[in-house]
Amino acid sequence: MTPSSPAGKSSTDTDGTIGQLGEFGLIKQVVRGRAQPAPTLLGPGDDAAVIAAPDGRVVATTDVLVETVHFRLDWSTPEQVGRRAAAANLADIAAMGAEPTALLVALACPRSTPVSTLTGIADGLWAEAETAGVGVVGGDVTASAQLMIAVTALGSLDDRAPVTRAGARPGDVLALRGRVGWAAAGLAVLQRGFRSPAVVVGAHRVPEPPYAAGPEAARAGATAMIDVSDGLLADLAHIARASDVVIDVHSAALDVPDRLNDVAAALGADPRDWLLTGGDDHALAATFPDGALLPSGWVRIGTVQPRGAAQPVGDDESAPVLVDGRPYGTDGGWDHFAR
Amino acid sequence: MTPSSPAGKSSTDTDGTIGQLGEFGLIKQVVRGRAQPAPTLLGPGDDAAVIAAPDGRVVATTDVLVETVHFRLDWSTPEQVGRRAAAANLADIAAMGAEPTALLVALACPRSTPVSTLTGIADGLWAEAETAGVGVVGGDVTASAQLMIAVTALGSLDDRAPVTRAGARPGDVLALRGRVGWAAAGLAVLQRGFRSPAVVVGAHRVPEPPYAAGPEAARAGATAMIDVSDGLLADLAHIARASDVVIDVHSAALDVPDRLNDVAAALGADPRDWLLTGGDDHALAATFPDGALLPSGWVRIGTVQPRGAAQPVGDDESAPVLVDGRPYGTDGGWDHFAR
Repeated sequence: MTPSSPAGKSSTDTDGTIGQLGEFGLIKQVVRGRAQPAPTLLGPGDDAAVIAAPDGRVVATTDVLVETVHFRLDWSTPEQVGRRAAAANLADIAAMGAEPTALLVALACPRSTPVSTLTGIADGLWAEAETAGVGVVGGDVTASAQLMIAVTALGSLDDRAPVTRAGARPGDVLALRGRVGWAAAGLAVLQRGFRSPAVVVGAHRVPEPPYAAGPEAARAGATAMIDVSDGLLADLAHIARASDVVIDVHSAALDVPDRLNDVAAALGADPRDWLLTGGDDHALAATFPDGALLPSGWVRIGTVQPRGAAQPVGDDESAPVLVDGRPYGTDGGWDHFAR
Repeated sequence: MTPSSPAGKSSTDTDGTIGQLGEFGLIKQVVRGRAQPAPTLLGPGDDAAVIAAPDGRVVATTDVLVETVHFRLDWSTPEQVGRRAAAANLADIAAMGAEPTALLVALACPRSTPVSTLTGIADGLWAEAETAGVGVVGGDVTASAQLMIAVTALGSLDDRAPVTRAGARPGDVLALRGRVGWAAAGLAVLQRGFRSPAVVVGAHRVPEPPYAAGPEAARAGATAMIDVSDGLLADLAHIARASDVVIDVHSAALDVPDRLNDVAAALGADPRDWLLTGGDDHALAATFPDGALLPSGWVRIGTVQPRGAAQPVGDDESAPVLVDGRPYGTDGGWDHFAR
């Protein structure tokens, strides 16, 4: 560090727009003073970062959040948006049964974007990264017409096999860890112009994926796993198709929390729809051999059945997921290009 | 594969828009029939991919390209845009002295985007990935107002130390591998409304980074390395600042190719400006110990000097890079938020 480079942030650092501060000024600000955790062997500031991959493999996933499509800055603070962008990716790492090791971030935004918005997003990315024990090791910032955050997460399997979507077998039990329906309820509240109850709106703004539950499930023998980002039924359909099985969800095992019942009543909505088709909570859903001891916090919510003649699994057209033995109207899958 | 899933592309696959085809339909199309190379242990289709990291470390970098900021679809084909997006990231891996192992791609685009544009970009990403011996192992597609491609590249150091920007020492020689100024000349041609000469326009459309030269330089003892993406002087300034040295470029060693001289004469431009400040060719610049045997194709173009009292290297304000011993007007750095 040179004498002319102050160690702390000054109050003027976040004034103005990115168009005034410039790309390198912003990068300097959001990198300054961050401590990198152990997996980061070489952090930001070079052509690329170097991250530990102790068992000789690295798990990698990428997801992009776009303003007005995935978030609104009048509904969420920049820090909440940053947390959510990190969480969506870290949950994908957990869903492979892996421990996260690093995040990289590519951010595009209009020149008029306040610097404080971008430092807020960076703070949120860092805060969520820290809850998962990792650092933001690299990134890119550029101009665009619309604010967009593409995050890549890396992870380590620590000598375990990855838990894919393809390993569910007839006879397995289906289990869930974490909340479903809360983010959807929060989004419904915000869409009606309300800002409370805080607990559901907060679930939309910042999901709380159970990161540690992914590796725990892998160690407990999970045969397939996914994070619930598009909706429980839609994501279970990914497992059912990849594993060539039918998954039957037992609705009685999916308690509707009182709070969601209250919100649904106030909005005239069906809370069960939120649980079965609401995305963005990033719970983990996994299948385990029948009789396996489920790790703490996992709840049995269904069974895995053979794909019978009655349920032809075609390309994308069939109903590989049932609720109480019957197809559930629509699978409620979220397609970012559907209207 | 099920009987209802055709093995080959039909002619109707690329008709219509992504809004009609949907997110999952597109992913299925761009993944289908791709062979993954050896480093890909688990390819696309799950929550995350798994890639080999044989020495227990992974090199990672991310870069985003935005339509109208980085490319125009009336100047480049979708395939050229895809190649360029991949090349920019693969060059960063090479600049660490690493071998690329995988690409991940996050793509955002308007609902009206033709499917053929997106499959063209995917084809280009795959084509460039193949020149570097890697696959596209994962990705995400979502809606946005503007076409944007964020690529993450991973790489392996194969037990070597990373070649950072911070290792240049006084007395080292500066060497260059690959073209500089060609992409800038091509961009200048396009900006005047011309479409030829093809060789410079092609350099803008698809750079040809010397990927293998990165690991070769590392093995030959390179002390610092960077890929020239923002402009030679601007990128050398990153090395000079990180290494706390002054770099002197010897202009006589930088031949102006006849073709660039011709183009410059036709446009009334100074070709030397293109060589010294033009970005996007993704040549590699590296410093080597004096007397080191430079690997094939590297050309000595300057020297590394101690930072003297006459050249105070402040925060960002000084001139750590000289041309023939003197500051070169502006350092020509490309800032994506500068106008």
